[in-house]
Amino acid sequence: MTHRPSPWQLAVVPYTLELRQRFTLANSSRTTTPTLLVALRRDGICGYGEAAMPPYLGETQAGAAAFLTSLDLRSFDDPFATAALLAAVDRHAPGQPAAKAAFDLALHDWLGKRLGQPWHRLLGLDRATTPPTSYTIGIHPPDVARELAAAMHGRFRSFKIKLGGPTDRAMVEAIRAATDTPLRVDVNQGWIDREAALREVEWLAARGVQFVEQPMPKERLDDLAWLTRHSPLPILADEGCQRLADLRRIPGVYHGIVVKLMKATGLREARTMLETARALGLSTMLGCMTETSCAIAAATQLAPLADWVDLDGALLVANDPFVGPVLQDGVVAATDGPGIGAAPVADLFAG
Amino acid sequence: MTHRPSPWQLAVVPYTLELRQRFTLANSSRTTTPTLLVALRRDGICGYGEAAMPPYLGETQAGAAAFLTSLDLRSFDDPFATAALLAAVDRHAPGQPAAKAAFDLALHDWLGKRLGQPWHRLLGLDRATTPPTSYTIGIHPPDVARELAAAMHGRFRSFKIKLGGPTDRAMVEAIRAATDTPLRVDVNQGWIDREAALREVEWLAARGVQFVEQPMPKERLDDLAWLTRHSPLPILADEGCQRLADLRRIPGVYHGIVVKLMKATGLREARTMLETARALGLSTMLGCMTETSCAIAAATQLAPLADWVDLDGALLVANDPFVGPVLQDGVVAATDGPGIGAAPVADLFAG
Repeated sequence: MTHRPSPWQLAVVPYTLELRQRFTLANSSRTTTPTLLVALRRDGICGYGEAAMPPYLGETQAGAAAFLTSLDLRSFDDPFATAALLAAVDRHAPGQPAAKAAFDLALHDWLGKRLGQPWHRLLGLDRATTPPTSYTIGIHPPDVARELAAAMHGRFRSFKIKLGGPTDRAMVEAIRAATDTPLRVDVNQGWIDREAALREVEWLAARGVQFVEQPMPKERLDDLAWLTRHSPLPILADEGCQRLADLRRIPGVYHGIVVKLMKATGLREARTMLETARALGLSTMLGCMTETSCAIAAATQLAPLADWVDLDGALLVANDPFVGPVLQDGVVAATDGPGIGAAPVADLFAG
Repeated sequence: MTHRPSPWQLAVVPYTLELRQRFTLANSSRTTTPTLLVALRRDGICGYGEAAMPPYLGETQAGAAAFLTSLDLRSFDDPFATAALLAAVDRHAPGQPAAKAAFDLALHDWLGKRLGQPWHRLLGLDRATTPPTSYTIGIHPPDVARELAAAMHGRFRSFKIKLGGPTDRAMVEAIRAATDTPLRVDVNQGWIDREAALREVEWLAARGVQFVEQPMPKERLDDLAWLTRHSPLPILADEGCQRLADLRRIPGVYHGIVVKLMKATGLREARTMLETARALGLSTMLGCMTETSCAIAAATQLAPLADWVDLDGALLVANDPFVGPVLQDGVVAATDGPGIGAAPVADLFAG
């Protein structure tokens, strides 16, 4: 190990996202999401990144900060050698996919700014082909769900609703009373019995639902494969497919996968997952956590590679510290800006 | 269709490669390879490409020229939208993978020059990790094979030998009398009986062979799967895996695949094939036809993604019209030049 100074400067800032609505899933409920914001500087260029860490996934601001500040960036001579560089980051410690994603995003932002190009152009993608995003409605009492759906009717071309609670059907019926917008369903592993799950899926199929995410616990491979064989709707893996290495086990068990930057350790692996899934004949959704416009901007760079998109994360946040892509005609598409296409609203990293 | 002029200018030149040695495979023999060289110009930048067309694969200079000159480039407004653009080229006519590769290479060369970067950098790859190339020895009388191997001993870290003829074992023994350099074997579908094929593979395994390409006809999936299960050496698909869509059928039938730009329609799909194969746990070799330093230069941009490399194509040619990467310590690695990293030795496209 040499003692020369690193050409890189890395700054991290913990930041807590305030959610516009209490966010209730099958197994958790919260009003905030902890994130760690990252600035990576070299040669007068600054790249931004973010680790968004819903608490139930186990990562923390302190853990992500410890991971990132313990990286020895002096060995990262060639910032363009991202494959080797990000593999080294991945080997630095097990787990911590959101912390790894924060570095991946900041590095890609830096590289894109260095080249003066947004990443969708460097990846050969046409942002005009970005699929519309869905808007997420957590588990609510039926009357609250109906009000939310009515308020958002017309702004989005689909709603993604969280099921797996005791009032699933009542919530769907309440939303259907307010809007005929297509629905997507995320059960977050909330159903246990496969026969009952199939009955729910069939009931949902008759009510304009496009697909069902993670209906049963990810360990129940045989039940999931049975449900996938019998389901009238595509069954997607979310918790059941975190990273590229999981993809081999998906065909025959699910119809497709949900890719998220915070699971996949960032843009590089997420892109490979989307392309590999397509090559395997799997359908793909590009999703997100509740996160800032920084991570959403990064995800929009890949969005033309996905069949479906759910990139409403920053829209659910009341104190978004970044300016990035905006919702237009139901689509959140990449901006023209170089890199990932987001800028902080104030000097977050001044302190 | 509008009548505005195209911002693109495309020039094609038929060029016949003279091979340094007669090149004999299990089912063909020749002393030349027809190619079509391509120059794609826009905004003062020129990108080069090549279609190399060994006659037994069925493409012709006239057919490739007709394909390329009938593309309506006026609709290709955004040269960075390569995914949509190359998909349109692919849909323009069935087959003709080498003609499509010529366009893909020229476009990538143009884009890389526009960005001032070689493609290995844009893809995040470190060319210092390029695996050594093998040198190909066709089917020869044993004494000729021995002379060739002796002449090339020390310049290459492996030889790839073509088997499937009547004197396979004698040829291997003759080469082994001249050199202990590791060998790779390409049978070009030449073996018919699976039990006999297994005996040959076992015999080869005892003589320092690294892997066997396409031992049996590509249609014989059951026999190939049986051989793969029993083989002490990796069995790779060449004729059995042309494009990305073929990859789904590979696991369980072969251990890995051979990717070539001229099969895969160019850099974009070849890269996806290499990454998808790796994600599926398949091993990969990046190979070539006898082709100029133009196509070889393009292939070197992807070489760090492959487990094994066979990029000796331009070394087998006596009248290479391009200057590109050179052999150094047994490795043909990408150059520093922007785009694909090759330049014509004279103004081939003046006429």
